[in-house]
Amino acid sequence: MFQTFEVTSTPQFGRERVEGLRAAFDTLGIDAFLVPRADEYQGEYVPASAERLAWLTGFTGSAGVALVMRSEAIVFVDGRYTTQLVEQVDGAVFTGGDLVGEPPHLWLPKHGRKGLRLGIDPWLHTGAEVRRLEKAVAEIGGKVVFLPHNPLDRLWTDRPAEPLGPVTIQNVVQAGVLAVDKLATIAADLKAKSLGAVLVTDPSSVAWIFNIRGSDVPHTPHPLARAIIYAEGEADLFLDKRKTNIEAEAYLAQMSAQRAPTELAARLAIACANGGRILVDADLTPYALTDLIAREGGVTVEGIDPAKLPRACKNAAEINGSAAAHLQDGAAMVEYLYWLETGKPGTVTEIAAVQKLEALRASVGERMQNPLKDISFDTISGAGEHGAIIHYRVTTATDRPLNAGELFLIDSGAQYVNGTTDITRTVGIGRVPDEQRRFFTLVLKGMIAISTARFPKGTRGCDLDPLARVALWKAGADYAHGTGHGVGSYLSVHEGPQRISRLSTQELLPGMILSNEPGYYRPGGFGIRIENLIYVREAEDIEGGDVAMLAFETLTYCPIDRSLVIPELLTHEELHWLNDYHDRTREALMPLIHDRDVRAWLENATLPLSH
Amino acid sequence: MFQTFEVTSTPQFGRERVEGLRAAFDTLGIDAFLVPRADEYQGEYVPASAERLAWLTGFTGSAGVALVMRSEAIVFVDGRYTTQLVEQVDGAVFTGGDLVGEPPHLWLPKHGRKGLRLGIDPWLHTGAEVRRLEKAVAEIGGKVVFLPHNPLDRLWTDRPAEPLGPVTIQNVVQAGVLAVDKLATIAADLKAKSLGAVLVTDPSSVAWIFNIRGSDVPHTPHPLARAIIYAEGEADLFLDKRKTNIEAEAYLAQMSAQRAPTELAARLAIACANGGRILVDADLTPYALTDLIAREGGVTVEGIDPAKLPRACKNAAEINGSAAAHLQDGAAMVEYLYWLETGKPGTVTEIAAVQKLEALRASVGERMQNPLKDISFDTISGAGEHGAIIHYRVTTATDRPLNAGELFLIDSGAQYVNGTTDITRTVGIGRVPDEQRRFFTLVLKGMIAISTARFPKGTRGCDLDPLARVALWKAGADYAHGTGHGVGSYLSVHEGPQRISRLSTQELLPGMILSNEPGYYRPGGFGIRIENLIYVREAEDIEGGDVAMLAFETLTYCPIDRSLVIPELLTHEELHWLNDYHDRTREALMPLIHDRDVRAWLENATLPLSH
Repeated sequence: MFQTFEVTSTPQFGRERVEGLRAAFDTLGIDAFLVPRADEYQGEYVPASAERLAWLTGFTGSAGVALVMRSEAIVFVDGRYTTQLVEQVDGAVFTGGDLVGEPPHLWLPKHGRKGLRLGIDPWLHTGAEVRRLEKAVAEIGGKVVFLPHNPLDRLWTDRPAEPLGPVTIQNVVQAGVLAVDKLATIAADLKAKSLGAVLVTDPSSVAWIFNIRGSDVPHTPHPLARAIIYAEGEADLFLDKRKTNIEAEAYLAQMSAQRAPTELAARLAIACANGGRILVDADLTPYALTDLIAREGGVTVEGIDPAKLPRACKNAAEINGSAAAHLQDGAAMVEYLYWLETGKPGTVTEIAAVQKLEALRASVGERMQNPLKDISFDTISGAGEHGAIIHYRVTTATDRPLNAGELFLIDSGAQYVNGTTDITRTVGIGRVPDEQRRFFTLVLKGMIAISTARFPKGTRGCDLDPLARVALWKAGADYAHGTGHGVGSYLSVHEGPQRISRLSTQELLPGMILSNEPGYYRPGGFGIRIENLIYVREAEDIEGGDVAMLAFETLTYCPIDRSLVIPELLTHEELHWLNDYHDRTREALMPLIHDRDVRAWLENATLPLSH
Repeated sequence: MFQTFEVTSTPQFGRERVEGLRAAFDTLGIDAFLVPRADEYQGEYVPASAERLAWLTGFTGSAGVALVMRSEAIVFVDGRYTTQLVEQVDGAVFTGGDLVGEPPHLWLPKHGRKGLRLGIDPWLHTGAEVRRLEKAVAEIGGKVVFLPHNPLDRLWTDRPAEPLGPVTIQNVVQAGVLAVDKLATIAADLKAKSLGAVLVTDPSSVAWIFNIRGSDVPHTPHPLARAIIYAEGEADLFLDKRKTNIEAEAYLAQMSAQRAPTELAARLAIACANGGRILVDADLTPYALTDLIAREGGVTVEGIDPAKLPRACKNAAEINGSAAAHLQDGAAMVEYLYWLETGKPGTVTEIAAVQKLEALRASVGERMQNPLKDISFDTISGAGEHGAIIHYRVTTATDRPLNAGELFLIDSGAQYVNGTTDITRTVGIGRVPDEQRRFFTLVLKGMIAISTARFPKGTRGCDLDPLARVALWKAGADYAHGTGHGVGSYLSVHEGPQRISRLSTQELLPGMILSNEPGYYRPGGFGIRIENLIYVREAEDIEGGDVAMLAFETLTYCPIDRSLVIPELLTHEELHWLNDYHDRTREALMPLIHDRDVRAWLENATLPLSH
């Protein structure tokens, strides 16, 4: 299994660890210390060795930051995690803060002690974050103290070793472009901008540029690594040799000098000599490194990570790989939905449902000789009222059966070498109340509105987000998350800059893969989400049209539960889309399904609906 | 007539006037001078005495700025006006610039002469603009020179006198709130924020706060005036006494000291004494005044004009007044559409069509004892290919007949004491090609999508704009303007901050009046726009809904040309809206129409359509 169901929080150690940290304050010359969830690589998934926030507080959510002061300690989390926080931390030691409304840099000017010396580990905060923090403590006459070593790591005696997951080469068949060519493009761009080098600190960018993958963190197959790429075409790759075999080292030697991560400072110093101009993405780069550039006499030129947009705009090989990965994943989902429907309601639990899905993905992967490498995130498996918890993670403590008359929401994804998948289906366990079917149909209307959208070049993610909500809005409802996030190519399932969200001003560009996942959540009642992955493509010309348009192509093929659809609530166009989608699903997946009963189920699950 | 059709441009004087201006450069110590279209009050409509850009260049568009340098002169205009610019200015003297893509503050750093001394009239530029210009010329080692007198005004020997339009009191029946109460609210807010005073420089804000109206500029009934409101409750109103009669002066004396505009500097100096903190809206206030505050030892606190949002969020009296004004305006429009349809195609010209509409508005206004005070902007009256020119202004040089088989687009509005209207109808002169009917129906779908939208509190103008475009996008088409602008209450027909536009992040709030006007334009072919005014209101609760919603209520009632609608392209919901809208239109307007033939026409024009 690629995921666990244990309750791993250890709130009982919170008091002693916080006291241990405070005991070091005077020696360190600080009055407070900040413990973000982020690691030295600023990733969404962090290795066990960097789970400092969980170790200190007990809180295991995917976003948060603790502010430990002399007589108070606050864990700032967002709305998803307020309930979980209460369950996971010792309320006598920690209080809760609002990570969105009043994060530390807004909390401190209002409530911080005058003259506060705020200690931070400069490897765990980006340059952009440090700027905000320095401004915040300046307002109360305090200052930020950069600590040379993280004081937590001295207390954490049984801290796991840093990960040394093996590195693999991503074949050019999947990558579409040779790493040497990507490096040449980046170097030419540096030269055109009179820059000496770029410091690439995002492990996904390193993985994409060098066409390598790794296994240092759960669910995202990038190796923890950094690189300096020079305008003259050379590159330094800071990747521990214990992660690479001879083949990988020979491959990397063709285009770079593979160096130990500890050599980064020395090489960066050389690049900085004589006022070297270094491109840095301040939103991704640890302050420790931008600070180093300044101290070594280099000039930091802030810009966008050069791999960010090219990585987001998939080439034909990446799109084709993703499409193939999605068909394989769809076949596993069909076997899964068949299993769910033919099982006896009440006999399957949420955990069993997760285990079965992973087993089916693994077996289909073996059969198709394209193995399941990982899941792309911890599966969300929520029956009944658990479906309303948007980021629900089932544990042995919360597990419950899927009962008749309830909705079951399963949001999951897989990592294959040719692509990353992410799919949500909400299915009825037996017959569910019409009110829930009505909301299912309204969510479906939103999902179809995005699927069928055409839009002019220049359209941004925020322009399309409302289309997914109009039908729900008319029913007096909404959902409290974005409509879609970017997805990588055998990389992170959450990738920027593309998003379909009210906050995203990034233009949508051909090749971008996004999720399309409107939902509806009735707290304590039920939850609905329907999610396909889609990608942006040039739209074919339309008779009488006069503006160049983009459109979406769907990647995910898997039946949508027809028993939950009220056809009368769909327009002719929407009904046509649904029937056509089911036709295409049947045609695409039938050749991949061998079991006669499953084939019959698929046939039935994709029959047309009519008014 | 409230509008003229003459060609008023005088390009033949451009050379001599520019040379006269340049001759003053050395004495003034400048190398360049900036001539914006704006006046000292930063308004959309400027009095004849402030039409400096038109006087200098010949260009009469509503937005633009000339940059006159020693050997080059550029008139920057936006895309609407590139053709008009070529026609109106002497190409041997002026070249054209791009006001949107590369306005002066972006043009200067790239192309400006090193060390350039840029002269400006500090009354014609806001503080925000001056900051941008100073930054721009600093990049080329130059500086901004603030001139004590506008050098153009010395050359302009026959410059018209400044306007002295009479001021009227806006009855509290229409205003809804007494001016003394508005002043008290503003004063209390200043006190709560520890501010000494606010400088109000937007004439529409002054008019709204004091419940007065004026007639200094065309089409917008505000007097050119400014005010200082103090935290202790007093107010200085800088309004020339030649504009006020005894009654108005007695009214204003109850709440303010009415002073000559020339007294502003002295009063502001007093407010600044001892570090007085003055609230200033940097986007609205001439630099001359913020500069004065600094020189007099005051502290400028930048913020939003205190009348801006309250003025945008109409109270019940303002909404009721607007609704009544729209019914009256709708009756005039019905008489007008009847006249258009029963006339012989080819006999009516665009100018005649404008004249008839104004005459009908005036006669209905007399009949209903609520006279037409002004039109709210120059009527856009475009037949055939002229309909595709979004801001077409018909002149004796461009006038043409409305011919059979063509679309005719008429966009117009009126000022009544109880409200400002703005309506566009596109009608077929006889039978028009199906392709044009198809686009008419697609535009109508967008207009219905906005009319029927419900949306959660917090929704911004940019969130709704795409809803009006989806149907056109699917046909490969779009329109190059926003979907809606704010509209005042017997004030400017273009009012901020509310807008339905991809650029507007202003939240929509109850009481805001907006236009809803999608369109489609085929250059050289035809133009379509359908426009109603709507306002934001709380939406009624919906069974099963759980989010507080807002919705729009329509203010404009007037038939939409049924002959241009292809019912098969509308959904059931859209067709239902159209039929219901026509039912409501007939019920609302029939009591206001007395002519039997017009009544019969209205009956027919509002019959239901079906699939």
